[in-house]
Amino acid sequence: MKVSEIGEFGLINRMAGITNISIDKRWKSWRQLVTGIGDDAAVWKPRNPFQIATVDSMVEDVHFSFKYTTWRELGWKSIAVNLSDIAAMGGVPMYALISLGLPENTDVKDVAALYEGMTDATELFQVSIVGGDTVSSPFVFVSVTLLGCASNEQGNTLTRSSACPGDKIAVTNSLGASAAGLTMLSNSLEFPAEAAAELRRAHLKPMPRIAEGQILVATGVKAGMDISDGLVGDMTHICEMSKVGARLNIDLVPVAPAAVQCFGGQALQFALNGGEDYELLFTAPARTIRRVQRALDCAVTVVGEVTTAHPGKVELVDREGRAIDLRKAGWDHFSR
Amino acid sequence: MKVSEIGEFGLINRMAGITNISIDKRWKSWRQLVTGIGDDAAVWKPRNPFQIATVDSMVEDVHFSFKYTTWRELGWKSIAVNLSDIAAMGGVPMYALISLGLPENTDVKDVAALYEGMTDATELFQVSIVGGDTVSSPFVFVSVTLLGCASNEQGNTLTRSSACPGDKIAVTNSLGASAAGLTMLSNSLEFPAEAAAELRRAHLKPMPRIAEGQILVATGVKAGMDISDGLVGDMTHICEMSKVGARLNIDLVPVAPAAVQCFGGQALQFALNGGEDYELLFTAPARTIRRVQRALDCAVTVVGEVTTAHPGKVELVDREGRAIDLRKAGWDHFSR
Repeated sequence: MKVSEIGEFGLINRMAGITNISIDKRWKSWRQLVTGIGDDAAVWKPRNPFQIATVDSMVEDVHFSFKYTTWRELGWKSIAVNLSDIAAMGGVPMYALISLGLPENTDVKDVAALYEGMTDATELFQVSIVGGDTVSSPFVFVSVTLLGCASNEQGNTLTRSSACPGDKIAVTNSLGASAAGLTMLSNSLEFPAEAAAELRRAHLKPMPRIAEGQILVATGVKAGMDISDGLVGDMTHICEMSKVGARLNIDLVPVAPAAVQCFGGQALQFALNGGEDYELLFTAPARTIRRVQRALDCAVTVVGEVTTAHPGKVELVDREGRAIDLRKAGWDHFSR
Repeated sequence: MKVSEIGEFGLINRMAGITNISIDKRWKSWRQLVTGIGDDAAVWKPRNPFQIATVDSMVEDVHFSFKYTTWRELGWKSIAVNLSDIAAMGGVPMYALISLGLPENTDVKDVAALYEGMTDATELFQVSIVGGDTVSSPFVFVSVTLLGCASNEQGNTLTRSSACPGDKIAVTNSLGASAAGLTMLSNSLEFPAEAAAELRRAHLKPMPRIAEGQILVATGVKAGMDISDGLVGDMTHICEMSKVGARLNIDLVPVAPAAVQCFGGQALQFALNGGEDYELLFTAPARTIRRVQRALDCAVTVVGEVTTAHPGKVELVDREGRAIDLRKAGWDHFSR
């Protein structure tokens, strides 16, 4: 059955069904909701005094391809990348609004799979889907708005503008697997099954670091963001907004083992410039970083330090302190 | 200059420039903002305890055509249709997030015009643009998230689910001009200049009824929405959500004079089923409607009443009470 056959309102009912099954009425997001799906807008009564909002879109054949992405994976990722922006603030995700563009000949079961992937992610983080719209479109796009709140009453968040000279620069977990996965998928490369599965998961089912972001804030970290454009590109954003420089030691960068196994030396490029890892990048005094390392379950690796030299710029050095040429400054949607 | 030449970040800076010029730091939305454009998400500290959110997308050649829409008009309308959803709740608009899909060969001056149209609308209603994303896309789409709050401390809003049998049904101003405008524009019809300008304005520069929605709530109206799918289709939504019926008297419907002048008898069809008028449709006891008529500057016309017959259905009658055939139940994006 095509979406053109059941019509917009048939589709909305079908999606509302999948959404409602996924919601647990004990969730904080549900208990604070006053008006949900079905009215002109959603209404909620937040307990936390600070509200957070972000939006991100994924476009067919620009951000994903159905050649190697299932509808369910697309659903997960479209929510996960927005959750990652809430994690990047150290916030608590609460509500999602879904704006969906679909060709008229889209199969209803594919849309159902998309929603199942979305609710896989919203259930895990107790996010209620409270609205959105579905429109006819020549190709698929998914635009997700994620609403949340600060994780503390003081409204402390991670920002891009609060890095200080002398801070250490650290990242969670490892980098490069997502870009390695994209390269593998888009070129149909063959690798050992376990490593290939890991690269695929890294690219298509990224895990937003929600708990980690909140713990960073609670531990006193002020400056941070998620890595969506690549370590170098995103560190440059922090440098620009904080009016500081940064020195990254490429020999310290935790490159994902599966990426190294499949791509060898190229894996470091993926880790530096690949993007879409959705790990957290943050800066703080060394003793705060040590507290973070004790508080977090995941790996936290120091990869450099914040400097006063060259505000807005990132220098790459190796373990001997020699400058390394910066070849490519991260993902840029238009000028690649 | 094409957007591919200045790149994503060049474009973001250009748009942030236009946005910042438009913002007046005395606005409530600005004063409550903690973190705006440039970080991973926007953060604000609302005064009102009830928050409102809505999202709506416009897709090239589905919701608009550049054959007869300027970029500036597109900007206005993309914000206005979302403001209208806030008006439909009787809320106060505060923040907008803009998700924009653009072909790589889009001219930067067109994007600037788009943003000028957006800020024409956000300035009028003191809305701060606080984030969004811009992505490459095979054609243009604009997805706008509008965030706001209730207009009162009790969180009273207009909802679709609170119409009661015995309520009168009323609409603001007149209907049909937007659909008449669309018909005129998409078929290149020629009409007297003044009427043609009015139809064009109705379709491309609709005015969200923000103040009117707030006054409805303050006057005690509980049930209402904006007319985006057409009077009959939208009244059906209220009937379904409120589990009531409705009797609409087609001879009472205030058809826009310019639509009548240009389209004669067809104008009534536009008023009933055309959609995109963005006027307010609401129900309330007769004495509340009379209070609304005194409180509002604009025309408020009673067009029918809420009934217990046929829950979820709208009956059309003429002035003698004879049943009229319901030919078309409003705009449906897929099954037209």
